[in-house]
Amino acid sequence: MKVLIVNAHPEPASLTSSLKDLAVTFLERAGHEVRVSDLHAMDWRAAIEAEDFGTSANSPLAIVTDSGDAYEGGTLAPEIAAEQAKLDWADTVILNFPLWWFHLPAIMKGWVDRVFTFKYAYGRGEGNSIRYGAGVFAGKRAMLSVMVGGGPHHYSERGINGELMDLLFPIHHGILYFPGFDVLPPFVVHDTVRMTDERFAEVAADWEKRLLELDTIAPIPFRPQAGGDYERHELKEGVEREGTRGLRLHVA
Amino acid sequence: MKVLIVNAHPEPASLTSSLKDLAVTFLERAGHEVRVSDLHAMDWRAAIEAEDFGTSANSPLAIVTDSGDAYEGGTLAPEIAAEQAKLDWADTVILNFPLWWFHLPAIMKGWVDRVFTFKYAYGRGEGNSIRYGAGVFAGKRAMLSVMVGGGPHHYSERGINGELMDLLFPIHHGILYFPGFDVLPPFVVHDTVRMTDERFAEVAADWEKRLLELDTIAPIPFRPQAGGDYERHELKEGVEREGTRGLRLHVA
Repeated sequence: MKVLIVNAHPEPASLTSSLKDLAVTFLERAGHEVRVSDLHAMDWRAAIEAEDFGTSANSPLAIVTDSGDAYEGGTLAPEIAAEQAKLDWADTVILNFPLWWFHLPAIMKGWVDRVFTFKYAYGRGEGNSIRYGAGVFAGKRAMLSVMVGGGPHHYSERGINGELMDLLFPIHHGILYFPGFDVLPPFVVHDTVRMTDERFAEVAADWEKRLLELDTIAPIPFRPQAGGDYERHELKEGVEREGTRGLRLHVA
Repeated sequence: MKVLIVNAHPEPASLTSSLKDLAVTFLERAGHEVRVSDLHAMDWRAAIEAEDFGTSANSPLAIVTDSGDAYEGGTLAPEIAAEQAKLDWADTVILNFPLWWFHLPAIMKGWVDRVFTFKYAYGRGEGNSIRYGAGVFAGKRAMLSVMVGGGPHHYSERGINGELMDLLFPIHHGILYFPGFDVLPPFVVHDTVRMTDERFAEVAADWEKRLLELDTIAPIPFRPQAGGDYERHELKEGVEREGTRGLRLHVA
């Protein structure tokens, strides 16, 4: 495998960053190639600014079209083009982060906002026809590796925070599946505020096992836009198993 | 009302920023007080860094406890303390932003990550007992004002992106209701990529109407943690209307 790990934590000694380091060790030991985008170490800017688009930036700034022009015209800021090149190189992408306020840390959201530009990651095909199971990342796999402070029952089917897979849907389906990734079930570490050396050893063992099966485990069976289940961007009646509601409609 | 508007767009002439400007005009004309945090204009840093916590930053950095110590010890970075003071002042908060990759733009996520510190916005009460309908923002109202590129049918009950209220749940419930806000139904502008002068005039009229009823419209009836519907952080069986599933379990 050619694995890109995107890491979002300011502390190199954190649990999150430790899993990033372990991933490099485990994967390279097994003969895989690894590249890392360690966003804090790179001093990654999170906010989109006009300078991202170089000479393609108009005034007033039009983020969608200016970013598409910058991508196609080769005027994207070098650090953005470099991340797109890493994504093009990789066959497998891991987003490794702590769940902050039920989503990506801002620095990682800003990696998505800036790198997933128009014409590269979205706006492909007439009328948004090339997305959800198709697109620039088709044939590649992506997985979230998520550190969660709270325990699993807070995130269970009836847990007060909402079920974890529903909370992650905007990332899994909206950020990863949309531009074409096959999205693997997440690697989740719960109760990170109560980590011990003993538990960490168990987590590390589970992590190695998961990393070495990244190229074989089954992805989440999201429904491809062009797979026949949707008509005019809405799910056809009767496609789902009876009683399925909400976001789970979009999983076959 | 005392209204804090948090705005996330780099372009002052954008639709998003125009709605921010209109909100100031409409609200002040009606006699309300308004303060604005225009994040790009403030050059708001999105990523949490050790310097956020001043002398409370430990090495290795422990974000939860260091941020709580910094809040309680008064060593938070001045720009963070200033945002907390604005939140303490306000009785109504509007987050005004374009929906990017189905969530807040990174700069606004970073406003949440950095300003909603431990002991201020979370970690109150024994065993997380003061949250979801209680907490620092109890008695205040919050509303999202969201610019959405796509049309409503992409975000309908069976729309391919997922239903908009489900996609916004991690923000509504996880970011706003968690620390105590009453969360108002969002003000949503769809099809922003096809805006015309005529439509903009309609949007502006709807916006003024909504702004002037912020203190009277009914909030989303999320279930308070301490309201009796939950036991050990899970929703009791039989509380919901039959057939309710997923994230909607948490709306009464």
